[in-house]
Amino acid sequence: MNREQIILEMKQRVFEANLTLPKEGLIKLTWGNVSEINRKLGVIVIKPSGVSYDTMCAEEMVVTDLNGNLLEKESLNPSSDLATHVVLYKSFEKIGAIVHTHSTNAVKWAQARRDIPAYGTTHADTFYGSIPCTRQLTREEIESEYEKETGKVIVETFKKRNIEPLACPAVIVYGHGPFTWGETVEKAVQNSVILDEVASMALGTEQLKPTITAIDSYLLDKHYYRKHGVNAYYGQN
Amino acid sequence: MNREQIILEMKQRVFEANLTLPKEGLIKLTWGNVSEINRKLGVIVIKPSGVSYDTMCAEEMVVTDLNGNLLEKESLNPSSDLATHVVLYKSFEKIGAIVHTHSTNAVKWAQARRDIPAYGTTHADTFYGSIPCTRQLTREEIESEYEKETGKVIVETFKKRNIEPLACPAVIVYGHGPFTWGETVEKAVQNSVILDEVASMALGTEQLKPTITAIDSYLLDKHYYRKHGVNAYYGQN
Amino acid sequence: MNREQIILEMKQRVFEANLTLPKEGLIKLTWGNVSEINRKLGVIVIKPSGVSYDTMCAEEMVVTDLNGNLLEKESLNPSSDLATHVVLYKSFEKIGAIVHTHSTNAVKWAQARRDIPAYGTTHADTFYGSIPCTRQLTREEIESEYEKETGKVIVETFKKRNIEPLACPAVIVYGHGPFTWGETVEKAVQNSVILDEVASMALGTEQLKPTITAIDSYLLDKHYYRKHGVNAYYGQN
Amino acid sequence: MNREQIILEMKQRVFEANLTLPKEGLIKLTWGNVSEINRKLGVIVIKPSGVSYDTMCAEEMVVTDLNGNLLEKESLNPSSDLATHVVLYKSFEKIGAIVHTHSTNAVKWAQARRDIPAYGTTHADTFYGSIPCTRQLTREEIESEYEKETGKVIVETFKKRNIEPLACPAVIVYGHGPFTWGETVEKAVQNSVILDEVASMALGTEQLKPTITAIDSYLLDKHYYRKHGVNAYYGQN
Repeated sequence: MNREQIILEMKQRVFEANLTLPKEGLIKLTWGNVSEINRKLGVIVIKPSGVSYDTMCAEEMVVTDLNGNLLEKESLNPSSDLATHVVLYKSFEKIGAIVHTHSTNAVKWAQARRDIPAYGTTHADTFYGSIPCTRQLTREEIESEYEKETGKVIVETFKKRNIEPLACPAVIVYGHGPFTWGETVEKAVQNSVILDEVASMALGTEQLKPTITAIDSYLLDKHYYRKHGVNAYYGQN
Repeated sequence: MNREQIILEMKQRVFEANLTLPKEGLIKLTWGNVSEINRKLGVIVIKPSGVSYDTMCAEEMVVTDLNGNLLEKESLNPSSDLATHVVLYKSFEKIGAIVHTHSTNAVKWAQARRDIPAYGTTHADTFYGSIPCTRQLTREEIESEYEKETGKVIVETFKKRNIEPLACPAVIVYGHGPFTWGETVEKAVQNSVILDEVASMALGTEQLKPTITAIDSYLLDKHYYRKHGVNAYYGQN
Repeated sequence: MNREQIILEMKQRVFEANLTLPKEGLIKLTWGNVSEINRKLGVIVIKPSGVSYDTMCAEEMVVTDLNGNLLEKESLNPSSDLATHVVLYKSFEKIGAIVHTHSTNAVKWAQARRDIPAYGTTHADTFYGSIPCTRQLTREEIESEYEKETGKVIVETFKKRNIEPLACPAVIVYGHGPFTWGETVEKAVQNSVILDEVASMALGTEQLKPTITAIDSYLLDKHYYRKHGVNAYYGQN
Repeated sequence: MNREQIILEMKQRVFEANLTLPKEGLIKLTWGNVSEINRKLGVIVIKPSGVSYDTMCAEEMVVTDLNGNLLEKESLNPSSDLATHVVLYKSFEKIGAIVHTHSTNAVKWAQARRDIPAYGTTHADTFYGSIPCTRQLTREEIESEYEKETGKVIVETFKKRNIEPLACPAVIVYGHGPFTWGETVEKAVQNSVILDEVASMALGTEQLKPTITAIDSYLLDKHYYRKHGVNAYYGQN
């Protein structure tokens, strides 16, 4: 496939992934955005900013280089969160797609400014340990390059806590909401679905037992490595 | 367009906006009402009272003057909340449409008689600060012109707290439920959708952290002014 | 219309009303039952017991006399709650239809063995005061004629508390679930919808403010009498 | 019917039952699995592992013997939980089908590591007493044959507490999620629906009254035996 065809297919995938967000109940109105990267080609495709999901079409997806510079004439404005995506792609080298939502249950945790603890195997099947909540951005960070700083604080969180991005493909941004990612755009969207479900379950778990603690590490290991890594035995591969 | 055509289109928009309310899960049965104003024409169009959404048609929308007097022969009765709308249109001069619902999560706050604090950016993207809850109406106010007094207490709330109606296009009426508004009927309905979502998130946030406080003013500013005002950079304009 | 035609139409209405219950999210599987009475004709029509909503048809609705005796040959078994309906029809002379569900939010209150207080106008628009929870049935009542005793304890509750059945067309049976009623089958179903919504709102209200109390009587009066009685001014009549 | 035809029909039923899980809101993505056993034929049919519900077809259902050994050439990998199903079928001799989900409300209880008490008749209609939560698996059990040990701890739970599997056709696995079963695959799926509903109601009940206790045994008996056993009088049989 030539460059044009590859970008066309990226646009189609990013478009469809965005439509999945309201279908899965993860967003209202035009909230949320999905992007995909092709590192060899040096291209990112992302949703345009504030376009109604009812009228949006695949061609309107915005194409940028790896620094977020627009590559197409007559391009729509990219999602205002593009700068966050760019920072994440630069630091998390194995990820191929990013999803940002304001999904109800994940936002509750973001607003409570809390990590989501691994309370069970539904969590452990996808997220290896707590889903981290970033520190608060400083006033200076917010008032300068806010979206870029949002990306930087996510990267800082994963570095400081020594978390491998694909081992925990989600983050909670303090006071804001979740970002998820994955090797493919399908995986990144699935991780948003799972994150919100896990966030809902974790709230209910605390309501049923306020003293609850995370599951033991060997149960976490068992479920995570049943699905991931060289000894995985879930699925058809 | 002549006056008749304009009113026909207003009826169509108000009709469709009302149908959106049950579709978005904001109301049950015939609850809720939407109106639109054309100040130049001196006309308000509002839903009729208590008509089933299954059989209602666009022509049945009720047309009144700016004081709420019926302008069409053989008109249906207007929504019983018309007098509230009239007061709001008179005082909030920049708004073009009003929506009243009994949406589940917003009503929880109304019944708890509490403002909804700005716990995160989902809130700040639309509402600049707490969404205010009105004071309790007195017995005299309730027993005299109840719907008009409801409008007056909303206006009083915004004046006393010095809130610009379009900067916080929603209110919680004490013991009752929400009203939202906007420059257009589409915006007013969207604000009802966002209000209920924000109300749900805020309840969950308090459940996860009972000591939570509102976000800092600079994060509130950042998100609100990213979408509103002369320096806005969200969307395609 | 002759007797046969009237019964055919009753069957059709009761059938459709039962189908509304899962559509409105009020029941799972074959839970719930609806009946209608024609006092002049001496006839009650009620859902058959445990028939799947997917295959059920209007003709299968069960016809009984006012004591619950089957009137048709080859009738299916009536809902096991028929005896409760019969007692309510005998004591609540103005009601024309009864609905029983296990709707999620109303059952939470039944299992908590609590009245639902009138925390706001959504409640007051339909229910004039607290929705009462019955006392616990005694072991003897449960082990003798359970369904009949369920009807009797509902009637006892309304008599002891001096509640007019149409002023509060719903009850919560201790440890069990709700019954609602109305002058027509449409009204009785609507009251089940409203009851569950009000039950959900009331739980959320208590979560937001544990010290909350019922609304003042004059707000209750205003909303209830705005929709009911000789001075009602809601709707088109 | 010959063996081939019987297996074809088992595949069809198991396939359809799996599709019911997302339709009923019991699972996300490819979570969950359903199996059916034919003891005379010595055959278990179970969902393949990790196949998308959008593309899965009836022929792909996996056929094994009663020890879980694959019986068909070119079979897909069976659900990774097959070993749990095998253990349950061996010990619970009257059950004909098993369903595993990660349904939201049941998982909250699993993660809270608690039995679900019988707080009302909705529970008692299907589950005779508390729905038990298993003990925690030891590190050794988790690290050896995890899925088999999961089955064994379920069986241990029912034996120790002296619960008849069909009298309480559901279990909560500590930190994980629910399994349900039944004489038929339809019943097993229904029990998953009811379990999640009962789990939701029980959480709300505790929120409304933290001091709540289980219903009295005679109300439990009444509702359970109204639907089950020789004196049952619910339904058409």
